[in-house]
Amino acid sequence: MKIGIIGVGLIGGSIALKLKQKGLATYIYGIDNNEQHLNEGIELQIINEKANLEEGIKNSDLIIIAIPVDAARKLLPKVLDLVSDDQTVMDCGSTKSGIVEIVKSHPKRSRYVAFHPMWGTENNGPKSAVAESFSGKAGVICNKEESAEDAFTLVEKIVYTLDMHPIYMNAQDHDIHTAYISHISHITSYALANTVLEKEREEETIFQLASSGFSSTVRLAKSHPEMWVPIFKQNKENVLDVLNEHISQLRKFKSALEKENYEYLGELISNANKIREILDK
Amino acid sequence: MKIGIIGVGLIGGSIALKLKQKGLATYIYGIDNNEQHLNEGIELQIINEKANLEEGIKNSDLIIIAIPVDAARKLLPKVLDLVSDDQTVMDCGSTKSGIVEIVKSHPKRSRYVAFHPMWGTENNGPKSAVAESFSGKAGVICNKEESAEDAFTLVEKIVYTLDMHPIYMNAQDHDIHTAYISHISHITSYALANTVLEKEREEETIFQLASSGFSSTVRLAKSHPEMWVPIFKQNKENVLDVLNEHISQLRKFKSALEKENYEYLGELISNANKIREILDK
Repeated sequence: MKIGIIGVGLIGGSIALKLKQKGLATYIYGIDNNEQHLNEGIELQIINEKANLEEGIKNSDLIIIAIPVDAARKLLPKVLDLVSDDQTVMDCGSTKSGIVEIVKSHPKRSRYVAFHPMWGTENNGPKSAVAESFSGKAGVICNKEESAEDAFTLVEKIVYTLDMHPIYMNAQDHDIHTAYISHISHITSYALANTVLEKEREEETIFQLASSGFSSTVRLAKSHPEMWVPIFKQNKENVLDVLNEHISQLRKFKSALEKENYEYLGELISNANKIREILDK
Repeated sequence: MKIGIIGVGLIGGSIALKLKQKGLATYIYGIDNNEQHLNEGIELQIINEKANLEEGIKNSDLIIIAIPVDAARKLLPKVLDLVSDDQTVMDCGSTKSGIVEIVKSHPKRSRYVAFHPMWGTENNGPKSAVAESFSGKAGVICNKEESAEDAFTLVEKIVYTLDMHPIYMNAQDHDIHTAYISHISHITSYALANTVLEKEREEETIFQLASSGFSSTVRLAKSHPEMWVPIFKQNKENVLDVLNEHISQLRKFKSALEKENYEYLGELISNANKIREILDK
């Protein structure tokens, strides 16, 4: 199967590597505004050749859009304008309501499958791509009833080929849940980085102290604004809702400390410990 | 060298394993209120035998205290009461001002070296102990001028034997910096776990979505209250200071979203990205 990857970066590159490895992709066209990423993609044998949008789409059975969510939302209608009923288009964006909405009435809507792989790192570009990235993770397919059966079946096959397990939900629910499970983690991590950078400004050596716990909590703060501002923008209401809840949870810790109510502090921590049962099961 | 480990858990156990592996510890006495940890310690060859406090101290050249900071603060004066000028005592606590203060005027103060290895995990007990835990991490020695030179030299040798690099600072500075580098990460992580648990209460399946980013940010929320309440209690003022700053940083994200000021949101994220240079250097 010939595949066109729009956005030869971390996600697009990782998908390409895995699909080639499993033999599902026989030829991959790379489409990207970033010439360096295209060249690296060829060098790293992620793509076979670079193509412009029209050519890449024309030659591909499956088109995978793996660019920031604002750009994807603008591009998808144009891509659908160019595809026939034998072709399938999927995206990989971290927000789903906005993109699903914009193609709702598009005559080729049924050729599109809304997808979100629940994996990412703080790194970007094709050099960060790894074939095994998605193994064991969830792959969310949204509003599957709006996709043609053959298109949906193909994307489901891609999900299994990536060694992911598919989860089905509607786009609104997806955006609520990812606000909790992914988006708020990023804001927390950014804010934590800013807190430390603000206060420890003049004492660089102190970062020698940084323990693995700190690095782990602040890891996501390395993620780029080009990707994350559009996500927060598209999922504004849900993210604000969770952010307000998070601030109020932090205030409980503040209040317990201020009032020296260490029994309450212990209860807050014991409650948080329940996350272990859920994450480890 | 014979070593008495008070608290055969994650930290005490990991230190014991490494010191045995390197041949520095020839015999290890385990001292613990938790009989199960002592038995597991023998089974896992972390300790050679279990002992009560008096016996264990009497037979050891070096006594390592690795118990929660409130218990350590209570126990240290009693341990110092029992040691001679040939023996050395070190602790491993995450806060240092309180414990240093309480033995300030103790006649055997100079036999004690205040230590804090900058490593830990969300797990506990001897079964979690690993010899290589500390490799490459910082080992902080506080108020070294209050320790006898031979005691300090021995603990410094322990630090190098654990493959750590020593950092020297006074206890007050240590507690300010760990509030930023370690303690706030835990509060953030606990609050994030509580946020998600609160909101996602009725939708357990949603945790299938949990991405590696979420798991990484929330990992520390598995840490037990028995260890962490005493740390927050002993470092209350510094932790509150950082927590207030952190809440005000989160409010900046909230405000940027509410006002749809995405340029400002991008600036906040770009600033947070600077943590990459610091952590990766």
